[in-house]
Amino acid sequence: MFRMLKEIKESPEALARLYQREGGKIEKLAAYLQSHDISLVSFVARGTSDNAALYGKYLIESMVGIPAHLAAPSVVTIYHADIQTQKSLVVGVSQSGEGTDVNRYMEHARAAGALTLAITNTRNSSITKHADVVIYLHAGREESVAATKTYVTECMALLMLAAAWARRRTTLDLLGKMPEAAEQVLQSESLIKERVERYRFADQAVVLGRGYHYATAKEMALKLMETCYLPAQAFSVADFMHGPIAMIHEGFPTLMFVTRGKMSEPMLAVARNLREKGSESIIFSNTPETRHYATIHFMMPRALPEVATPVTYIIPGQLFAYYLSLARGLDPDHPKYLQKVTKTL
Amino acid sequence: MFRMLKEIKESPEALARLYQREGGKIEKLAAYLQSHDISLVSFVARGTSDNAALYGKYLIESMVGIPAHLAAPSVVTIYHADIQTQKSLVVGVSQSGEGTDVNRYMEHARAAGALTLAITNTRNSSITKHADVVIYLHAGREESVAATKTYVTECMALLMLAAAWARRRTTLDLLGKMPEAAEQVLQSESLIKERVERYRFADQAVVLGRGYHYATAKEMALKLMETCYLPAQAFSVADFMHGPIAMIHEGFPTLMFVTRGKMSEPMLAVARNLREKGSESIIFSNTPETRHYATIHFMMPRALPEVATPVTYIIPGQLFAYYLSLARGLDPDHPKYLQKVTKTL
Repeated sequence: MFRMLKEIKESPEALARLYQREGGKIEKLAAYLQSHDISLVSFVARGTSDNAALYGKYLIESMVGIPAHLAAPSVVTIYHADIQTQKSLVVGVSQSGEGTDVNRYMEHARAAGALTLAITNTRNSSITKHADVVIYLHAGREESVAATKTYVTECMALLMLAAAWARRRTTLDLLGKMPEAAEQVLQSESLIKERVERYRFADQAVVLGRGYHYATAKEMALKLMETCYLPAQAFSVADFMHGPIAMIHEGFPTLMFVTRGKMSEPMLAVARNLREKGSESIIFSNTPETRHYATIHFMMPRALPEVATPVTYIIPGQLFAYYLSLARGLDPDHPKYLQKVTKTL
Repeated sequence: MFRMLKEIKESPEALARLYQREGGKIEKLAAYLQSHDISLVSFVARGTSDNAALYGKYLIESMVGIPAHLAAPSVVTIYHADIQTQKSLVVGVSQSGEGTDVNRYMEHARAAGALTLAITNTRNSSITKHADVVIYLHAGREESVAATKTYVTECMALLMLAAAWARRRTTLDLLGKMPEAAEQVLQSESLIKERVERYRFADQAVVLGRGYHYATAKEMALKLMETCYLPAQAFSVADFMHGPIAMIHEGFPTLMFVTRGKMSEPMLAVARNLREKGSESIIFSNTPETRHYATIHFMMPRALPEVATPVTYIIPGQLFAYYLSLARGLDPDHPKYLQKVTKTL
C-alpha cells in the first residue's frame, strides 16, 4: 500500500487527536481574541495549506465577521513592504513549518506588532519560533508528498478556532463528531476505486465549488495536478460564469462539490447548465437532486451542516486522485519534481 | 475588423483620457485617505476586473503599506455575514457597473461604515449609487465581450491611486508616459500575428507570473479561456512549484511575463527549470536573458519600472489571444455562452 492511501485513512484518528489535545488551547485563544481589538485576520500559507487557509477565510468572515485576507508573501519577502499589522492576527499554516517565505512573513508581521498563530504538524519547527501561539495538528508523520490528513486537520483546526471565537454553539457541538463523519466518507472508497478507471485518459478537468467549498475545489484540483499530472483548474462557480465557461465542450470533465445549504441553489443551477452543454460531470454531493446532472454521482453523508463539510468532503476527492494516479501508472507518493518541503522565497 | 482588436488599439487614447480627466479627483481622494485612519482596502470585483483588483492589492500593500484584500462577495450576498468594515476603503471595480453581487457588497459595506470607491466605465451605472467616490475609466464604449481596454484603464486607475496615496514621486512622474508605453507594446502586433499560428491546436496552457504580474498571468489565462476556448491556468510561480509543476511534460505550453526588477531572478529560475523539462515556453519579457529559455520570445520595451508594467504588458497578451482566436476559427467578440454583463448573486 502506498503511503498516500494509508495517510488518507488516518484522518479520523488524526481529527480525534486534534480535537482532544488542542481544544482547550483553542478555547483559551478564542477568549483572548474576543477581548482584544482584532481588525483583520491574515493567512499566510502555500500549496495545500493555502487551500485550507481559503476555507479559514470564509469561516472567519462568515462566523466571526472580521475581514480575512490571504497574504501574498512576496510583498514582504521580495518587495520588502512594511505592511501595517498592529491589529492583525496573522495565521501561518504549514504542515512542515519550514516554508521559507511563510516564516519570513510571520517574522515580519510579529515584529510589526501582529499577534501570530502557527498551525503546523511539526513540533519545534521553524514556524513555531515566530508564533505567539501554536496549534499542533497531531496528524502523525505525513510521508507522502501529496498532503492529505494534514489538509483535513488544518481545516478542522480552523473550524475549531472560528466556532470558538464566534461562540457558535451549534458548530461547537458537532466538532466531536467530525472523526465519525470522516469514517463515513471513507466508505465511498470501493465505489470510487471502481469508477475512476473511466478517467484513465482524461487530459483536462475543471473543479467547481463555491463559498466554503471553493477551498475543496482548489485542493481537489491540486491533488489531480500533483498525483495524476492532470491539468485541473478550480473555480468558484461565480467566477466560472464570467468567462471560463466558454471553453466547455461536449465531454469536458467537470468535478463539483455540492452540499445542502445556502450554496445548493447556485450550485444546482450550474450543474444543470453544464449537463445541458454535455459536460462529463462528476459530482460529490449530499443532495439527491444532483443525481440528474451527474455522469457519476458520489453520495455524501447528510449528517453535517454545510459549514463543516469541507473538513471531510475532500477525503473522497483524495481517494479519487489516489486511485486515478494508480490507474494512470503513477506513484502518488512521489510526484515528479516535487519534494515534501518547498522552500520558495 | 473585430471589435476586440479595435478596442485593444484604443488603449493609448483611453489611458490619456483617464490620466487627464481623473487625475485631479484621484489626488483629492488620496489627500483624504492620507488624513484618515484606513486599516484595510477591500476590493470587490469579478472576472477581468477581479484580475485588475489583484494588481491593485499588490500596489496598495507594497506602496501604501496597508493590507489589501480581495473580497469573497458570497460571504455577504449568500451567507449574509456582517463584516466589520468601519475603517475600510471598499473598492468596487466593474466595467459595466451592473454586477449584482459586487453592487450588493458595496451597498452592505457602505451601510456598515466603509468608505466606498467605484471604478467603472459606465456613467450613472448602479455601482455609482453605492459609492462615496467614483473614478470613471473614460475608455469609451466597450462592445466586445472580451474586456481589453477597460482592463488596461482599471490597472492605470489603481496605479494612479496607489502612487498618489503613497506620494511616490517616481511613479507619479511616469503616469503621463503610460499612453506612449501602450503605443510601444502595440508594435509587437505583426510579430504576434505571425507566430500565433503555431498554437492553432494547443489544447492546454499554463500562464506564469509573480508579484505585480500575477494579475497579468491571470488575465492572460482568462483571455485564452474565453476567446480561444483554451484551458489555461494561471499560477504565481511560487504556488506553481508547490505541486502543479508535476503535470509539466515535454512540449507543455507555458506563457510567462518577466520584467527587470525584483522578480526577475525568481522568474528566470523558473524559466530555466521549465526549459530543462522541455516546456514550450512563450515569454513576454523586457530582459534579454529570457531569450535562452524561450521557444518564442516577445521583447517588451524597457522604459517602465516593474511596478507600472502590468498596465501595458497585458496588451501583447490580448493581441495573442485575439489572433489565436481567429486562427482557431472563433469569434473573439462573441464567446460561447457569455454576455457582456454577468449578473451572479
